[in-house]
Amino acid sequence: MKGEIISVGTELLLGQICNTDAQFISQESAEIGIDIYFHTAVGDNRYRLLDVLKIASERSDLIITTGGLGPTEDDLTKETIAQFLNLPMVEYEQAKSRVIEHFHSREMPSSNKKQWLFPEGSKLIPNRNGTASGCIIERDSKIFIVLPGPPNELQPMFKETVEPYLLSKKDKSGVIKSRVLKIFGLSESKTEEMIKDLIERQTNPTIAPLVGKGEVTLRITAKASDNNEALEMIEETEKMIRDRIGEYIYGIDNDTLPLAVGTMLINKNITISIAESCTGGNITNLLTDVSGISRSLILSEVTYSIDAKIKELGICPDVIEQFGAVSHETAMAMAKGIRKKAMSDIGLSVTGIAGPDSVEDKPVGLFYIGISSLYGDKTYEFNSKGNRLWIKNFASLAALNELRKYLIKYM
Amino acid sequence: MKGEIISVGTELLLGQICNTDAQFISQESAEIGIDIYFHTAVGDNRYRLLDVLKIASERSDLIITTGGLGPTEDDLTKETIAQFLNLPMVEYEQAKSRVIEHFHSREMPSSNKKQWLFPEGSKLIPNRNGTASGCIIERDSKIFIVLPGPPNELQPMFKETVEPYLLSKKDKSGVIKSRVLKIFGLSESKTEEMIKDLIERQTNPTIAPLVGKGEVTLRITAKASDNNEALEMIEETEKMIRDRIGEYIYGIDNDTLPLAVGTMLINKNITISIAESCTGGNITNLLTDVSGISRSLILSEVTYSIDAKIKELGICPDVIEQFGAVSHETAMAMAKGIRKKAMSDIGLSVTGIAGPDSVEDKPVGLFYIGISSLYGDKTYEFNSKGNRLWIKNFASLAALNELRKYLIKYM
Repeated sequence: MKGEIISVGTELLLGQICNTDAQFISQESAEIGIDIYFHTAVGDNRYRLLDVLKIASERSDLIITTGGLGPTEDDLTKETIAQFLNLPMVEYEQAKSRVIEHFHSREMPSSNKKQWLFPEGSKLIPNRNGTASGCIIERDSKIFIVLPGPPNELQPMFKETVEPYLLSKKDKSGVIKSRVLKIFGLSESKTEEMIKDLIERQTNPTIAPLVGKGEVTLRITAKASDNNEALEMIEETEKMIRDRIGEYIYGIDNDTLPLAVGTMLINKNITISIAESCTGGNITNLLTDVSGISRSLILSEVTYSIDAKIKELGICPDVIEQFGAVSHETAMAMAKGIRKKAMSDIGLSVTGIAGPDSVEDKPVGLFYIGISSLYGDKTYEFNSKGNRLWIKNFASLAALNELRKYLIKYM
Repeated sequence: MKGEIISVGTELLLGQICNTDAQFISQESAEIGIDIYFHTAVGDNRYRLLDVLKIASERSDLIITTGGLGPTEDDLTKETIAQFLNLPMVEYEQAKSRVIEHFHSREMPSSNKKQWLFPEGSKLIPNRNGTASGCIIERDSKIFIVLPGPPNELQPMFKETVEPYLLSKKDKSGVIKSRVLKIFGLSESKTEEMIKDLIERQTNPTIAPLVGKGEVTLRITAKASDNNEALEMIEETEKMIRDRIGEYIYGIDNDTLPLAVGTMLINKNITISIAESCTGGNITNLLTDVSGISRSLILSEVTYSIDAKIKELGICPDVIEQFGAVSHETAMAMAKGIRKKAMSDIGLSVTGIAGPDSVEDKPVGLFYIGISSLYGDKTYEFNSKGNRLWIKNFASLAALNELRKYLIKYM
């Protein structure tokens, strides 16, 4: 079944709201194996909506609309679909009692009467959270599903009524499942290069790379007759990918680097302290997004100035004098210094140049990461491009990723 | 000029990301008086994209595409537009040097070469934050604007290159200008309530409240025959609003609370140190987004544990014992402690409960802010609702806002 979503509402075209309804319906549809091929957003305008309905019904079997079911004049989705399908609008008792019940003691504006009119032959979709019932219309082997715009109304309606309906309708050819592999430390093009033959050879599951904020993701999508088969296919493909670039994969689906690292620290009962310079508190900020991290995180300091590095972390001034504040040596001294002071298992540090100005004749984007523990002291050098915010973010993720690899290797 | 947006990417149709690009472009277009009539999302599929381009070019003068400019095989937007317009793809030196510069010492995957190929006759749109340059193509009185998908790349490209271009192209029947007032410390409904009569009375300029992440904004939009007239109209309306709620307005347009506070600190030559607890480094992280803040920020510590509060900030254990770690008294002691240690002009502190678990029988969302300087010691109590990330963010902004008001009042 080829599906598409038409979202009706001028507020979408003015950018006043984001089209989260289309995202939600797409996610849910993918879960139950319905392919969505297009999203369209159109304003509260009868003629443009008619045009869009015509285009959609020529290319799709399933058309899901959102929005335009309210009581006001610019709510015209149902009426326009009725016009398009050449169906009269008729009263539905069930919808009428829902609206009247909603207003019970209060006076009902007469405009609300349109909320119990639907194209003849509709099946109603009950709405627990509002007065706008939805409807399903089957006509000439096309299915129209008509839903209200507010997400708190649409979402339960979709899950409770539309999904079971679609499952009963769709050809029994199977489900679509996908898994996202989260990668740090490889560019999108490098990732693709390293698994190019897999991407090209595979048609089911498919493998699609996507670039995020300093990260890359790979989406594996399998079509199969049931969930178990799809999962097996995904796992087989995932294994082939991991054999090539496993060391760069830090998690799947909704995992984030801070969550991956934070969870390891908490589960392994490891305490940590952090000394940040160019990342300006961002590493600690990311790590403290993880619930329960207070059990692991003893202390974090942002020692921006050379003075603070010397005074707070006990770094020997000679080290900074000789090698510079942005160096392997200073990164190491910072990691050791904060660890000693906090008496934590691990000390993590970053020192570098976020820009816009360079420091010590060293380039913007250069940074060093230090990790110190009983299991060994390590430093890492990175060069990154981008503006101040990009470098701060990238250096923070790089530090968390080196820590992740360190924890796996040594602890 | 009739415009529409085509977003290319299978990830949109699977619901893996929300179409924030379409929202952003719609907002910005409305600001400069360009009407957007349709949004379409389509997958990484040449034939479906060709169909969508055909439909769009029949009904619109301006077609803005997002996504599909990466180096990988499923990135096919430029190639498909070239095919649609029957134009050859040619090399652009400027784009080539951008890509090569990006990879400088590292090896460039050969697939990146496609990032310097564009339909013949394109004007390039430079991309500061990535290797995917965009382009503008004028053909048969239609304009095609081709942008990459990642918001951090697309947004500056749109503001810096596309907006001036569109302004130069659009009909000269007048201008639309707007200014956004940034508000902290008032809810959207409270803001609306306090200026309800202004909102209702005004038709030009219009006043539109919008809720953001812990903040509220008011957009004033004026239509006038020229920029000066529009500006005068905006300023008159702004004055009326400021007379009512001026103390809550911390800036305009692209101002942020960290930028407003950071700029004040730098310009007034005031040094600061910060002791964070429940905000986990986020205040310092936000403040270090401001270039040049290293002149003001001496030291910041995240003292999550009670031990660290006592050892690092020299807080008397009796204070914590008697009043709790989340209290006016501890917030004050933290602010004084960090200020004394760093010998800075100001000490700023936050202590509170970000959740999910409550502490000391105090509720999640309770937090205290402390500010200490020669000009006086102050503490502030807040109660907020929301999850851990929301509370961290809100408490960080609240601390910056109290500091902003303190700086205005006392320093």
